[in-house]
Amino acid sequence: MRVLFSNRNFERLREIIEPLFMGHEIKYANISEDVSLLEWADVLVRGTEPFTAEMLSFAPNLKMVCQWGVGVEGIDIEACSAKGVFVCNVPSSNTGNAEGVAEVAILHMLLLAKGYNKSQENLKKGKVFSPRGLTLWRKRVCIVGLGNVGVTLASRLKPFGVTLVGVNRSWKDKFDALKLDQFFTLDDVNAAVKGCRFVVLTLALTPQTEGLIGHEFFKNMDKDAFLVNVARANIVQREALESALREGHIAGCGLDVLWKEPPDPDDPILNMPNVYITPHIGGTNDEALRGIPAFIADNVNRISEGKLPLSCINVTSIGKAE
Amino acid sequence: MRVLFSNRNFERLREIIEPLFMGHEIKYANISEDVSLLEWADVLVRGTEPFTAEMLSFAPNLKMVCQWGVGVEGIDIEACSAKGVFVCNVPSSNTGNAEGVAEVAILHMLLLAKGYNKSQENLKKGKVFSPRGLTLWRKRVCIVGLGNVGVTLASRLKPFGVTLVGVNRSWKDKFDALKLDQFFTLDDVNAAVKGCRFVVLTLALTPQTEGLIGHEFFKNMDKDAFLVNVARANIVQREALESALREGHIAGCGLDVLWKEPPDPDDPILNMPNVYITPHIGGTNDEALRGIPAFIADNVNRISEGKLPLSCINVTSIGKAE
Repeated sequence: MRVLFSNRNFERLREIIEPLFMGHEIKYANISEDVSLLEWADVLVRGTEPFTAEMLSFAPNLKMVCQWGVGVEGIDIEACSAKGVFVCNVPSSNTGNAEGVAEVAILHMLLLAKGYNKSQENLKKGKVFSPRGLTLWRKRVCIVGLGNVGVTLASRLKPFGVTLVGVNRSWKDKFDALKLDQFFTLDDVNAAVKGCRFVVLTLALTPQTEGLIGHEFFKNMDKDAFLVNVARANIVQREALESALREGHIAGCGLDVLWKEPPDPDDPILNMPNVYITPHIGGTNDEALRGIPAFIADNVNRISEGKLPLSCINVTSIGKAE
Repeated sequence: MRVLFSNRNFERLREIIEPLFMGHEIKYANISEDVSLLEWADVLVRGTEPFTAEMLSFAPNLKMVCQWGVGVEGIDIEACSAKGVFVCNVPSSNTGNAEGVAEVAILHMLLLAKGYNKSQENLKKGKVFSPRGLTLWRKRVCIVGLGNVGVTLASRLKPFGVTLVGVNRSWKDKFDALKLDQFFTLDDVNAAVKGCRFVVLTLALTPQTEGLIGHEFFKNMDKDAFLVNVARANIVQREALESALREGHIAGCGLDVLWKEPPDPDDPILNMPNVYITPHIGGTNDEALRGIPAFIADNVNRISEGKLPLSCINVTSIGKAE
């Protein structure tokens, strides 16, 4: 198979990528600027740039578009389906993505619980055994969104001895394994967070969740509670979060995602007390960097052997469902 | 019962302490400076100052010495036994101590894994999706010392999907529940750490473990591995650790304990790259602050009802074993 990577940034990863695609041909091109190599490609591995119907028209041999990661926004899936092109993504579980994001959520919870910034000030002042932090143990924790990241987080948090509250659009039987202490549907999210010391957002950004977390939500949170967001910034109304922090409706927050990325270095939120920020590092880790291309390479092998690819978004639309 | 707290710092906690000791009388005194209240006391609750045979001779009514926490170094246990005085400590599990220390160990592991300091520099430079950190997921982790803290840590780490190596003086059947992937005795600790990405010290400081972690240990660690110490600083030879960091025998370390506490604010270790330090906050948390006096109050109630106290160090020596 002839596999085209959609931008030249991927070339920096060639030492990881190329051994995984043994037996296939690989090229890299910035397809946003130059579509000429699309004609050559059997498979397109796509980053974050758009892949439109027009671009597809330059790719007569294309059999599959593989998203590098989960999010396929920006791919014209309908156009692909119409031409019989598989559109596949890489599931976040077991590829280092969900695992990494869950770990960064726990990092933020521990930074907040232990008062890490204060501890660093205390070191400089020569103070030990201070600040008096919190344990996660015995605290009530609400996870909003039980997709791959939420489920991965829940399974790691429960053994800390927390009381676990789960929120999801609807109940799924697989949640039984999480041993949740309580479950709410997303409609009741404002009720779910009452009494929780930590609230972690792990839900997908959709038209329904955009701006979901606003003034009412923060008023329902306890005054000594912390918000952690490892999902997408636009789920949270920025102005509502800032006023909740300023007015003491909540005690602090940890954010791995920001409304503008990269943020302005002088954005005041970077220096608010009890706010911890990391630069969207949840999914950026050693395992994801191997796990994602390994999954894609496996799909390339599958279609070259005439099998259906895995994690295919449009398999039913193109009439090839198993 | 008349309960004397051994130093006036405890007075700052009276709002937490006194409701727990309802029905008993409470006083506070700096017994290192003034022994006069010892005569009054049925029970002594002791902080970290010495409690000697001479001091005991001023306490004719004393029935029990309760350590605030685990460590009873500095109490003349033999003298207490000879006079029929129970010496009790507070076990670290289920009182917020072991739980808090295990959480701080995981905080350090995540700070190191995610390159937290570098992430903060990147934020200031306007860089996102960087640094490329590690997952704990799929890494090999060695826990050296499977006492209460080590066991508490193991049960929390295993669900992160790590390969878990345990080291202890000897095997105990209760370790079965930890689902360790491998076990070594303490004699083989240098072999145990080979191939591990994280090594966490959770063992007690004893004459056998003092200075245990030296040059040979660091040479056996992988060059890309991290050391986390949440036990006692003197288990590690400072000079060996510093040269291991400087010469690249290990990739970094996280320390909740230091050889001198508080450290000099200009101690160079506070500013070494890839070194994270917290000011001995493992056991300093909201739950321990309630859990410890609650356990002691329960023991005071027990002896006032004629029962044997719990977690008694010298119960056999004074011939009152159950």
